[in-house]
Amino acid sequence: MGNIMKNKTSCPTWIWYPGDYEIWLGNKMNNRRTERGAFFPPFWKMDSHYVTVEFSKKLHLQKEEEICIAAEGQYNVKLDGKLQFGMPETFKLPAGEHSLNIKVWSQATPPALYIKGETVYTDATWKVTYEDKEWIDESGKASDTSATIYMDAGCWNLDEMSQRPSAFTLARRPERAVSQQNKKEGVLYDFGRETFGFLVLEGLSGKGLVNIYYGESPEEALDTEYGEMLDRIAVDGQQVTDLALNRTSVVVDSYVLENSKAFRYVYVMVDKSVKLDNVSMQYEYLPESYRASFQCDDEELNRIWKVSAYTMHLTTREFFIDGIKRDRWVWSGDAIQSYLMNYYLFFDTETVKRTIWLLRGKDPVTSHTNTIMDYTFYWFISIYDYYMYTGDKHFVSQIYPRMQTMMEYVLGRTNKDGMVEGLTGDWIFVDWADFPMSKQGALTFEQILFCKSLETMNLCADLVGNEEDATKYGKLAVELRAKLLPTFWNEEKQALIHNVEQGRRSEQINKFPNMFAITLGYLDEEQKVSVMKNVMLNEEVLKITTPYMRFYELEAMCGMGYQKQVMKEMKAYWGGMLREGATSFWEKYNPDEHGVQHLAMYGRPYGKSLCHAWGASPIYLLGKYYLGVKPVKGGYEEFEVKPVLGGLKWMEGSVPTPCGDIRVYMDDKIIKVNATCGKGYVYFASGCHQTPEVSTGTLEKVSNGYFRIWMDNAGEISIKY
Amino acid sequence: MGNIMKNKTSCPTWIWYPGDYEIWLGNKMNNRRTERGAFFPPFWKMDSHYVTVEFSKKLHLQKEEEICIAAEGQYNVKLDGKLQFGMPETFKLPAGEHSLNIKVWSQATPPALYIKGETVYTDATWKVTYEDKEWIDESGKASDTSATIYMDAGCWNLDEMSQRPSAFTLARRPERAVSQQNKKEGVLYDFGRETFGFLVLEGLSGKGLVNIYYGESPEEALDTEYGEMLDRIAVDGQQVTDLALNRTSVVVDSYVLENSKAFRYVYVMVDKSVKLDNVSMQYEYLPESYRASFQCDDEELNRIWKVSAYTMHLTTREFFIDGIKRDRWVWSGDAIQSYLMNYYLFFDTETVKRTIWLLRGKDPVTSHTNTIMDYTFYWFISIYDYYMYTGDKHFVSQIYPRMQTMMEYVLGRTNKDGMVEGLTGDWIFVDWADFPMSKQGALTFEQILFCKSLETMNLCADLVGNEEDATKYGKLAVELRAKLLPTFWNEEKQALIHNVEQGRRSEQINKFPNMFAITLGYLDEEQKVSVMKNVMLNEEVLKITTPYMRFYELEAMCGMGYQKQVMKEMKAYWGGMLREGATSFWEKYNPDEHGVQHLAMYGRPYGKSLCHAWGASPIYLLGKYYLGVKPVKGGYEEFEVKPVLGGLKWMEGSVPTPCGDIRVYMDDKIIKVNATCGKGYVYFASGCHQTPEVSTGTLEKVSNGYFRIWMDNAGEISIKY
Repeated sequence: MGNIMKNKTSCPTWIWYPGDYEIWLGNKMNNRRTERGAFFPPFWKMDSHYVTVEFSKKLHLQKEEEICIAAEGQYNVKLDGKLQFGMPETFKLPAGEHSLNIKVWSQATPPALYIKGETVYTDATWKVTYEDKEWIDESGKASDTSATIYMDAGCWNLDEMSQRPSAFTLARRPERAVSQQNKKEGVLYDFGRETFGFLVLEGLSGKGLVNIYYGESPEEALDTEYGEMLDRIAVDGQQVTDLALNRTSVVVDSYVLENSKAFRYVYVMVDKSVKLDNVSMQYEYLPESYRASFQCDDEELNRIWKVSAYTMHLTTREFFIDGIKRDRWVWSGDAIQSYLMNYYLFFDTETVKRTIWLLRGKDPVTSHTNTIMDYTFYWFISIYDYYMYTGDKHFVSQIYPRMQTMMEYVLGRTNKDGMVEGLTGDWIFVDWADFPMSKQGALTFEQILFCKSLETMNLCADLVGNEEDATKYGKLAVELRAKLLPTFWNEEKQALIHNVEQGRRSEQINKFPNMFAITLGYLDEEQKVSVMKNVMLNEEVLKITTPYMRFYELEAMCGMGYQKQVMKEMKAYWGGMLREGATSFWEKYNPDEHGVQHLAMYGRPYGKSLCHAWGASPIYLLGKYYLGVKPVKGGYEEFEVKPVLGGLKWMEGSVPTPCGDIRVYMDDKIIKVNATCGKGYVYFASGCHQTPEVSTGTLEKVSNGYFRIWMDNAGEISIKY
Repeated sequence: MGNIMKNKTSCPTWIWYPGDYEIWLGNKMNNRRTERGAFFPPFWKMDSHYVTVEFSKKLHLQKEEEICIAAEGQYNVKLDGKLQFGMPETFKLPAGEHSLNIKVWSQATPPALYIKGETVYTDATWKVTYEDKEWIDESGKASDTSATIYMDAGCWNLDEMSQRPSAFTLARRPERAVSQQNKKEGVLYDFGRETFGFLVLEGLSGKGLVNIYYGESPEEALDTEYGEMLDRIAVDGQQVTDLALNRTSVVVDSYVLENSKAFRYVYVMVDKSVKLDNVSMQYEYLPESYRASFQCDDEELNRIWKVSAYTMHLTTREFFIDGIKRDRWVWSGDAIQSYLMNYYLFFDTETVKRTIWLLRGKDPVTSHTNTIMDYTFYWFISIYDYYMYTGDKHFVSQIYPRMQTMMEYVLGRTNKDGMVEGLTGDWIFVDWADFPMSKQGALTFEQILFCKSLETMNLCADLVGNEEDATKYGKLAVELRAKLLPTFWNEEKQALIHNVEQGRRSEQINKFPNMFAITLGYLDEEQKVSVMKNVMLNEEVLKITTPYMRFYELEAMCGMGYQKQVMKEMKAYWGGMLREGATSFWEKYNPDEHGVQHLAMYGRPYGKSLCHAWGASPIYLLGKYYLGVKPVKGGYEEFEVKPVLGGLKWMEGSVPTPCGDIRVYMDDKIIKVNATCGKGYVYFASGCHQTPEVSTGTLEKVSNGYFRIWMDNAGEISIKY
């Protein structure tokens, strides 16, 4: 996509083997989870970078040029096949046509390279390989029959030589508690809202222990027995030891804990022999611009949007993680929602790409993504989503080989009907549902995601120009699609059943497969209407209690035009969390629960995460289905604006795109749209005016009461409707 | 095998994921190659360790027990599923049945664990996994439907807690030059014989450059333009900078270079402004016991054996490498010969296993071993060899999964006849031959190695109890074997042709396929005799000029009873190198060349390695075909001693086995054999005595002039023959 790639070729930047830095950084991220002072790494295979890679570039120089070279790792420099002495930090390139090859070995951190010259510098146009075959024939000459597979180098925004990739850290700023209270033998500090960072013990002296208990709630912080997060520090004069890490440092003024934590409250108990002046923190964050905005007449909804945005920001770190307190892991099902919310908030494409690389890891594929079958499918689907929002074909072509091997793994595990069932080692997740739900046999839900994944393979194969694959996956998708309704549609109930198990069609109807079938396009209009009535709006169908699946539930309803209903649900559900005191949105919320019940999960009294990325979906719903902005062609080359007030008096906001923002205002009389680039249309239902008045362009009557008007070039349009 | 495994379970030792430490250490080894001061890494994919692994052990404790824990990496400790605080360095295990699980994460070095308690300690009986799936069901409880694949932990001899695997280094001892001579602007030091280690600059001061040129020959050391190895040091008072590594250190007395080198001669040029008192070295070596011995009446042959042994010792380092000067890489074709020589010298099984692990690397297989098709096949074959000499089934079961994936790769690249041909990316090596030889189409040589590899898969599948695989590979081997002679045997010439290319059978006859077919059993007796006459002993067939392929040539001749002929060849060829001044044996030796011609290779005047492992084959030939000792059943459970003087007056020597040595003495009248364990037989041709006299046991007449006598238990036998 235009400006993303342009940006990357206009200045020197650190480069590496695509995906390798992401996997390495992800290992650091995923290994930061702790549980009551114990290290708690993920339970899936963790991959690693290629330890030796070669970077290369063909040069065409008008005149000789001196370059500066920096690398992470031991390296050599080869000009036109001739090795140069040592590891030169500067090197003079002669004028003319030349090949420059630099090989870097680094075991601990990904091999990375930075070159800066007047016209020669490292960027995504460099080639990189991890198994360049240099052929030496018997005469001793290198021959040309090489089978090397070169990739375009990976990079991010580490554009200064001093920004060594292995030294990357998020930003920090100091924050102070808003209040403190003596409680039993300790002090409870309140930082005012959910936050994340490194605790700072100021003015520490004496000899003895400091016990620190973190809490997203005061109950958790004060429960020294069952709280999830704690730290223990031994003080001996200026020597301070983190007892969880067995690491001692010498402290002059303040001691900053090495492990970051999520909390709002901190309960600190200090031995009498220890003096501690104050407790503060270093807030840690990924600097992001809030490119999107949303405002309306409903203050509660405005607050829901703001708290959603804050929830998103807290969980947007080196990668999009699930929640900041507990797992702090990158989970594919969580991540795909973060990506979608991100397109309506930061439009941070780099963090999307990083997360997609990390989730995939390396070959061989030995299990589903995060071990979860559904999460594998979300991974596929997220790539075409990414293309649609960004138009970045280059990324699709880089990741495509790993899509192929991932799909080979899936296809190697289908049953005789070509459907997926949970085999040994597969976790069939779906949702943390409060009702019994079989995970055996062929789940309708999984087949829908599988079919969509095959369709994604077909689309992406097409994007990268792989016709053979496009045909193969297209055929598989068509075959599976043809089986879905005959296998899973219950004629009597006019809805999709839960599963088929040992040849028996289940009687259970739940929302999961039905809402996906609506949104992903597996039902005709009549079926969709039946499903809305019989399932989605049916009070007898069991309720979804995670924001995770409410995302898809409410999306399906919005897609069917139920914005008014969804507005009520949002205010009740997310408003409900706010009324319970939430300063960020939760992993799970059951309005029927009360008090400390809200804190418990996984059989643990404070097991629940109170800041979970999947809690932030109103951002996505409001941007896509109220402001109504979405791409129609990759990268917003063509876009749709279909604003719906859904019961609001007015709303205004902006949605970021790769080349600018689309701003929308709507009240009961006027729609105003302003786009800074691209081509798109506004789609709306007529209000007071039988024939709406438009400031520019030609109105098109689409159907019963619906109109469309094209904005052929970036610009502004105003519609009295 | 008995004592190897017993050893490993009798004391605590550092453990890791099998193969991982080997791959990591191998990366260090393979990345030490330099060329004129430039870093020169291998051109194949380098793998890496799993960064997070879990070690586990089921405990049955009579009473409570305290263990000490050390790990390389961040770790946690879980007792019966409960995570413990921090990273405890000691831990009290309660009496009773328990599960102990320890998870270690380490990016830079392989995760490794050491536990020492009275009855609980780390050894090869621990289990280890890199993707233990912990299942959490919706009630929040861990469930038992785990799909974890556990392996037995890998280990070596790092038995002390202080012997951290990542800190492993070879031994060193100081050595001094035997002479020095002023030459032009510098000084030429002679260390008396081929050696390896770190140069030491003693009494360095002043400011300026020290240029160091290494040579295996004086010509190379003195040729500052074309010598292969050099170092450049900048001195500035006590600050000494290695200019190849950009690394500065502060030197008090002597400066020891960081990079080791191979050399006999060193030519040192020092700026006038720099003072240098003396140059010495630190010899670096793997401590080995010379378990084998060989002596005879021929002093030249004794010297050949000793120089072979020294050549082997120099090239037996962290791994078996090719040569110490140049590649210093682990090559499969070279390594299989080192293993075989090693069985007749050190019997160092650990270095064999390490080398086999490293050569295989990790999945996915993306190319042949070292990119060479033949080298893949040697890798397979070496595993069954290892089993035969050591009886170590446990190792075969550990490596077997990687044999499967390697063979899948090979089988995925066969042609319509089920034969292997070089495809893009495959290097068909065979040998550095001095005559033209096509590498296109199906080479007979490669099919023989492929067939042997399939037979190896069949044998190993059988060893590990995988009947399905045994059947599958057995069938493939039988099918391929049946095609070999019909496809490649030339009736007229009574020999195997070189290849079939585009449907055309080559007219070329060379020794390569023919000698392998003899030794590996692809010809009947009559065919073998024809091949000996028409190929092996035919002066018109082009000569082999590498000790590498002379190994197999002479082995085939020995196998056919041509020990007298081979003795002449050994004395001429290896004796020829000695007469050229060799103090270790060379990569290639063509007796027709003269003077500095012997130093050139690969189009470079000093490209040849003068200390190459494959130069040491007399050790193997003398042990196996003169002393005549070899295993008949795995691990010398049954052995054969078939001594042949081959023109010598007398010989004596010993051959190591897993459980002791087999000593053999023979002159023209007597054969004496002494074995310290196992069951075996002596097989010999009668000499002066029509009916030989034996000290014990029952003589068995095998065939025309040949006798066999069993040594049922370890003991001694004396035969007048």
